[in-house]
Amino acid sequence: MKHILAEVITIGDEILYGQITDTNTQWISTELDKLGIRTVRKSSVGDDKERILEILQEAESRADIILITGGLGPTKDDITKNVLAQYFNSTLVIHEQALMEVTAYFKSKGKELTEINRSQAALPDTCTFISNKRGTAPGMWFEKNGKVFVSMPGVPHEMKGMMTDTILSKLQKHFETPVIYHKMIKTVGIGESFLATKIEQWEDNLPPHIKLAYLPTMGQVRLRLTATGTDLATLQADVEAQTTQLQSLVSDYIYGYDNDTLESVTSELLLKHRYTIAVAESCSVGYISYSLGSVAGCSQYFMGSIVAYSNEAKINLLDVNRNTLEKYGAVSEETVKEMAQQVRLKFNTSIGMASSGIAGPSGGSEDKPVGTVWIAYADGKQTVARRLQLGNDRDLNIKLTAVHVLNLLRQSIY
Amino acid sequence: MKHILAEVITIGDEILYGQITDTNTQWISTELDKLGIRTVRKSSVGDDKERILEILQEAESRADIILITGGLGPTKDDITKNVLAQYFNSTLVIHEQALMEVTAYFKSKGKELTEINRSQAALPDTCTFISNKRGTAPGMWFEKNGKVFVSMPGVPHEMKGMMTDTILSKLQKHFETPVIYHKMIKTVGIGESFLATKIEQWEDNLPPHIKLAYLPTMGQVRLRLTATGTDLATLQADVEAQTTQLQSLVSDYIYGYDNDTLESVTSELLLKHRYTIAVAESCSVGYISYSLGSVAGCSQYFMGSIVAYSNEAKINLLDVNRNTLEKYGAVSEETVKEMAQQVRLKFNTSIGMASSGIAGPSGGSEDKPVGTVWIAYADGKQTVARRLQLGNDRDLNIKLTAVHVLNLLRQSIY
Repeated sequence: MKHILAEVITIGDEILYGQITDTNTQWISTELDKLGIRTVRKSSVGDDKERILEILQEAESRADIILITGGLGPTKDDITKNVLAQYFNSTLVIHEQALMEVTAYFKSKGKELTEINRSQAALPDTCTFISNKRGTAPGMWFEKNGKVFVSMPGVPHEMKGMMTDTILSKLQKHFETPVIYHKMIKTVGIGESFLATKIEQWEDNLPPHIKLAYLPTMGQVRLRLTATGTDLATLQADVEAQTTQLQSLVSDYIYGYDNDTLESVTSELLLKHRYTIAVAESCSVGYISYSLGSVAGCSQYFMGSIVAYSNEAKINLLDVNRNTLEKYGAVSEETVKEMAQQVRLKFNTSIGMASSGIAGPSGGSEDKPVGTVWIAYADGKQTVARRLQLGNDRDLNIKLTAVHVLNLLRQSIY
Repeated sequence: MKHILAEVITIGDEILYGQITDTNTQWISTELDKLGIRTVRKSSVGDDKERILEILQEAESRADIILITGGLGPTKDDITKNVLAQYFNSTLVIHEQALMEVTAYFKSKGKELTEINRSQAALPDTCTFISNKRGTAPGMWFEKNGKVFVSMPGVPHEMKGMMTDTILSKLQKHFETPVIYHKMIKTVGIGESFLATKIEQWEDNLPPHIKLAYLPTMGQVRLRLTATGTDLATLQADVEAQTTQLQSLVSDYIYGYDNDTLESVTSELLLKHRYTIAVAESCSVGYISYSLGSVAGCSQYFMGSIVAYSNEAKINLLDVNRNTLEKYGAVSEETVKEMAQQVRLKFNTSIGMASSGIAGPSGGSEDKPVGTVWIAYADGKQTVARRLQLGNDRDLNIKLTAVHVLNLLRQSIY
């Protein structure tokens, strides 16, 4: 199969000099990859006419699709549009629909159109106008010698909206890209190499039209299956059959698919069972609460939490037995179980969860080195605790503790 | 002044296809910028011989310094070293010091050197070896026609270590870069355009050898002053004099300098005054606690918090008066003040802080639209509340609330 090739170009001094983080190119190449379009080069150049002309020329010689973001603001620094006009031997003329849309945009914000913003509706006369529903700089689609160039604003949500609304489907149609079906299988609680060993044989036997990618993130590994062919229904059936096999190998670790997150999956489980939850945190200093509370609508099940960082707080606010703390220490199975049980009673919820550990960088001992964390689940019938051995990075330990607590919750109430 | 020009090249399919986030290039160009070296192009290419040769050739024609990361692992996919050997007409030979270091590295991990890892000590015979104290792939420094090429591993902490330990100073010496002095002035609680208006006149009067850059991040704007010249002491004095003028214009908003963070500054203030603190959170669902708790050593002042997401929790666990909640609502000056006062009593701390608001995306009203947040500070002598009007993004509202609470804390105990 011949691949359609793309280049992604970012224009702007701020990105080039490292003043702002470029999140656009990763997003764009991920979306192109989903359509079977292969990115062959990503580049950033500054707001400099010669540099921009040079990279346009280069990219045209290498790729079928050239996607450009940035440099479309109304200020003098932003020269992309003028350079594009020059590159495509075009004249800038006011585009009627573009003017209508930018006027409407300002009106919706209760503002009059200024002359400088009116100029945003002037487009090279050889381009196809692409509507921007989220801002004032329109997109531009050029065709030249069978190649497609698309210029988009650099503001991430404007660029993403434009890609999703218009450009991705227009590219699919224009290049008759192959039919592709993706499925993301999301795992938690197992490292990449252990997972790879468990599914090695299955992976080796995948049919040639289905590819597997490992995409690790913090405490999680996402597995992406990509099937390429001509008929969507067939591809979908093929991928589902492989997924079923995969499930039988590592079902304990799979928490969801595609757009699921650990947060959304635990939220759905709590809603389904009509359970309520409260959390007692020590080493995770509020991050478990934040993870539960980051889901819109969490007020239906998340009642709150007590962050008892000091031992006194564990005793006074969580009613943890002073003897337990003295005998076993704050970082122990006994203490974390009491914390989970007590916070459940305090908030009068179905479930209580807890964490206690040594986030670091100091405070470790030989028995309990930095990264030792106990977590617990209590629901009135049973209390389950688990010991984690994390690393030396305080912030990572805090965040990984929250991941493991959500995973314990998921496994306990499935 | 003639600029030394650099190009930054990332090699690896995972970055090109969007599977992992490239944080290296931003870091590298920021560090180069600090030395007065200007990045003119950033590029990513895949693990593909022809593509790598092509970009090396291009970069050589444009820049004085070509910094390359990635593609140095011991597996077959990683071909950078072989391609560099070809590009520089070199032969790979085992480098004695490299072999010693990689052997020592494995030994420190309690492992024997395997044949495949031994191959990591084979380097092109035209390069200068650069030590990697944090991993197994050495760096390589090449010189050709007055240009410098440096190849580094893609693992961020290995690359950063190598740059900081060796490469940056070696570049400075090699290119006799100008003397540069930087100072970062960190502000919070004022938007970029308001800040720009307040300091416009001062900015216009900056001497030509001092440049100002605005670097906005979430809820904060960092101002970076960069002085270029020949004598460090003079530059430092010039920048300090300008900083003093700037301070007199916007002292209320400046919370720190250079490596200070809002978290580190509030931590130092609490330690200095020997104050302890506890937090009552509603809409920020634990994120204020996380912000305070993310600082190593916070156990000296951070006692804990109560996340009272439900009204019942506000009444039962924080002793907020039921009448207050019924009369003024949970999102009100009255409620948030009681929350701050009560949490201080509960944890027996010097200071109590609180948040209550509508993080969204739903739950707003005409009076109190999404993004309405009340925050409060209480120390037993005074209670101060502040109303914020944030946006529509739930996660951003949660995080911005924490920024504003730390700012209120800073201003209250200065």
